[in-house]
Amino acid sequence: MDGIKADYTLELQSEELENLVSQAMERISPFIDGLGDQPAADVRGGEELARSLAESLPTEPTPFSELLNLLFGRLIPKTFNTAGPGYLAYIPGGGIVHTAVADLIADSVNRYVGVWAAAPALAQLEVNVGRWFCDIVSYPEHSLGLLTSGGSMSNLIAIVTARRNKLPEDFLSGTLYTSDQTHYSVSKAAVLAGFPPSNVRVVPSDGRFRINVEQLGEVIRADRDAGLRPFLVVGNAGTTNTGAVDDLTALADLAQQEGMWLHVDAAYGGFFMLTDGGRKVMNGIERADSITLDPHKGLFLPYGTGSLLVRDGATLRRAHSVRAVYLPNTEHEPDLVDLSQVSPELSRAFRGLRVWLPLKMHGIGPFRRNLEEKLQLAEWITEQLSRIEELEIVAEPQLTVLAFRLRLRGQDEESVNRLTRQFMDEVNARRRVYLSSTVIQGRFLVRICVLSFRTHLDRMQMALEDIKAAVGKVMK
Amino acid sequence: MDGIKADYTLELQSEELENLVSQAMERISPFIDGLGDQPAADVRGGEELARSLAESLPTEPTPFSELLNLLFGRLIPKTFNTAGPGYLAYIPGGGIVHTAVADLIADSVNRYVGVWAAAPALAQLEVNVGRWFCDIVSYPEHSLGLLTSGGSMSNLIAIVTARRNKLPEDFLSGTLYTSDQTHYSVSKAAVLAGFPPSNVRVVPSDGRFRINVEQLGEVIRADRDAGLRPFLVVGNAGTTNTGAVDDLTALADLAQQEGMWLHVDAAYGGFFMLTDGGRKVMNGIERADSITLDPHKGLFLPYGTGSLLVRDGATLRRAHSVRAVYLPNTEHEPDLVDLSQVSPELSRAFRGLRVWLPLKMHGIGPFRRNLEEKLQLAEWITEQLSRIEELEIVAEPQLTVLAFRLRLRGQDEESVNRLTRQFMDEVNARRRVYLSSTVIQGRFLVRICVLSFRTHLDRMQMALEDIKAAVGKVMK
Repeated sequence: MDGIKADYTLELQSEELENLVSQAMERISPFIDGLGDQPAADVRGGEELARSLAESLPTEPTPFSELLNLLFGRLIPKTFNTAGPGYLAYIPGGGIVHTAVADLIADSVNRYVGVWAAAPALAQLEVNVGRWFCDIVSYPEHSLGLLTSGGSMSNLIAIVTARRNKLPEDFLSGTLYTSDQTHYSVSKAAVLAGFPPSNVRVVPSDGRFRINVEQLGEVIRADRDAGLRPFLVVGNAGTTNTGAVDDLTALADLAQQEGMWLHVDAAYGGFFMLTDGGRKVMNGIERADSITLDPHKGLFLPYGTGSLLVRDGATLRRAHSVRAVYLPNTEHEPDLVDLSQVSPELSRAFRGLRVWLPLKMHGIGPFRRNLEEKLQLAEWITEQLSRIEELEIVAEPQLTVLAFRLRLRGQDEESVNRLTRQFMDEVNARRRVYLSSTVIQGRFLVRICVLSFRTHLDRMQMALEDIKAAVGKVMK
Repeated sequence: MDGIKADYTLELQSEELENLVSQAMERISPFIDGLGDQPAADVRGGEELARSLAESLPTEPTPFSELLNLLFGRLIPKTFNTAGPGYLAYIPGGGIVHTAVADLIADSVNRYVGVWAAAPALAQLEVNVGRWFCDIVSYPEHSLGLLTSGGSMSNLIAIVTARRNKLPEDFLSGTLYTSDQTHYSVSKAAVLAGFPPSNVRVVPSDGRFRINVEQLGEVIRADRDAGLRPFLVVGNAGTTNTGAVDDLTALADLAQQEGMWLHVDAAYGGFFMLTDGGRKVMNGIERADSITLDPHKGLFLPYGTGSLLVRDGATLRRAHSVRAVYLPNTEHEPDLVDLSQVSPELSRAFRGLRVWLPLKMHGIGPFRRNLEEKLQLAEWITEQLSRIEELEIVAEPQLTVLAFRLRLRGQDEESVNRLTRQFMDEVNARRRVYLSSTVIQGRFLVRICVLSFRTHLDRMQMALEDIKAAVGKVMK
């Protein structure tokens, strides 16, 4: 017993922790205040920088201040500025800093919420958050909401849940249906969940990039006639390409009629259910069996918080429930939710606090108002761009994504694509906004997605100026 | 355009953020310093408390100070004190507060690391961490390490990866092999990955709770003769029940001979590879095709950081790689790793920093020394308990878990179980340590798992005192 040597190095006391926090805050504060002035993206030399960082397992300590210098001085600047107001690429969210405070607390107290017995009240906060999300999409009382690490994981859990409820045994002839605009995480999830890639049927979309429901019905019936087992329709409430929202009522009717599970991928669009405009566009979503929506998109949280809602909580439980002899038995309290019994994860982070805290601090009002503002901003920029003769709006915003390209008469597709890319590079080179692209039916399109809580009209005006300047440069 | 109203409520400036952080620190600091004096667990009234928290979506703001009072004053105290030195239940880790600082930074800057193009240097930090873990288990150069949300997710990814590499098409006759001591997340993952529950073969363990390899070989051969397709053996490096480590060399030989994938669940035990004792016990682990190990266990991180290592990185890529037109194309830099191409997640938290920061700040030394200390503490308490006539050590520690029960001559099994449970409740009622239980072959066993970086000899002495007192009370 004399031979046992304790090591207290890792056991920081409050004074040391406070010191680290205050050193970190000295870098975070100017970073936050300066977000509007930082380039919207700068990754020049990023690859070489990345390669230069490869190193073996550290054996020696490095002072914290040196690590902060490295992070804030060299590594963080060489990125897409996903937190900044000019980030209009992919699907931005911004990242409210309330979550940083929530995680500071959650990590410090390090409580375990996978079974409610270990932290009943904290587990309940997470259950509350799921409940709130269910309310937002007008789900009934017996629905259930989970927090996940992101939309891909939510889609995977949804597909597994649909599979286990609809095709509990041999499912290899089970087929699922997406549009040609569906996010790739759906077909990826289908394959991870065990389906042959060819069982994922891709149905064409219409001129507004919404699934052709009539054609979908025909494909389903043909598959059924061929001995396959159609079991799942995946609808979109805000595609990544153009923000298109499928006709969810028509999909719900069809799914009901065919006895199929309807999953709606609303990772990007879902929280627009907080707005009147969004509720109109997504009408019918409440009839879906499950819905993916991402707080790190429409609630502006930092990356790492997705969610999955199911209309009937029992379906999640049926898909995931397992008992183990070394876990606390909690079946005697059936009204309390064991998160590990309704999801694939047993141990995992306490994600509830990062959503609960900002919603409690502010109420839902500012979130709703921000989303309304983004809808208006997307409309405004579309209106402005439509006045520019040299641009063609290919997808008007159904929510807050729009897609456009150069209008070049008498040029072949390849030239238009090449020049449109050159145009986008010109816009991005000005570094006040950052736009991304997609390719639909061979057409290279520039996208704008307005979703960050830090993006306001002033930044959209900069976007407009830079777009006009780039048009001038490329078309001269 | 005049009609667009901006809402800045969520857009905290540095002053407001600093204010929130300092208010939070006023609660976190005494919490951290007082961890040793807090009860090891207290959930009395927790269920009623949880129920009282149910509320609908908040529409009004609540002052931050009030929320902190609720959290620190009422909710956090009613939990298992998973961060404290007396937490010897389940698998503790403690939760080093360095991670709280790392997440404060990561959430504030909100960078995206799912594709390296968006943040090459930060993605590289995460790749470095995976590399370090591979080095720790003596994996070769072409191995690859991922950070996940926890062990369940790592096991799920491993099973899907094994399935897609070994049985790329129809896999419903594929069988996998575990011992009767394997964590339930493995069979759960198998079912989520599409296997019928009966395809998970459970092979008995020996007197030390290690899988019977000879019998395993027989079951595999019988299955193969019956037309099934054995493809995956799951070995344990530290079971949850008793911390048992299977004969990994024998498993590797068998898997090789049978052309099967060997996955080792080292969620708890893996980081003991940093110690001489651990390397001896887990000899052969480097021959596994994949390994689950949980930084939120053996590296003492807060919950929410698991990892999966694969010996051949190409297997992960084969299982998960998909291209999408709206993502940056990064195939021209094959030496840089796109985390979304080798895992199921596209968007997700920047988990790299929470591991990288403490390892850089301290080097690996203190982590290794803490693990060595825990090995000695487990040995010490076993030695002490073995001197108590009324106790029977059922599982000696192979790493740092031990299991024991009351020794009651002439009593039937049921009485021994009942009294042993009563004994455990007596120990826990003293609130200096918290122990959990398991049931093996009908025998109720009390477990001790020494793993928190905050647990030292003084706390183990308290455990011993409380155990002695409880023995006295129950046996009187």
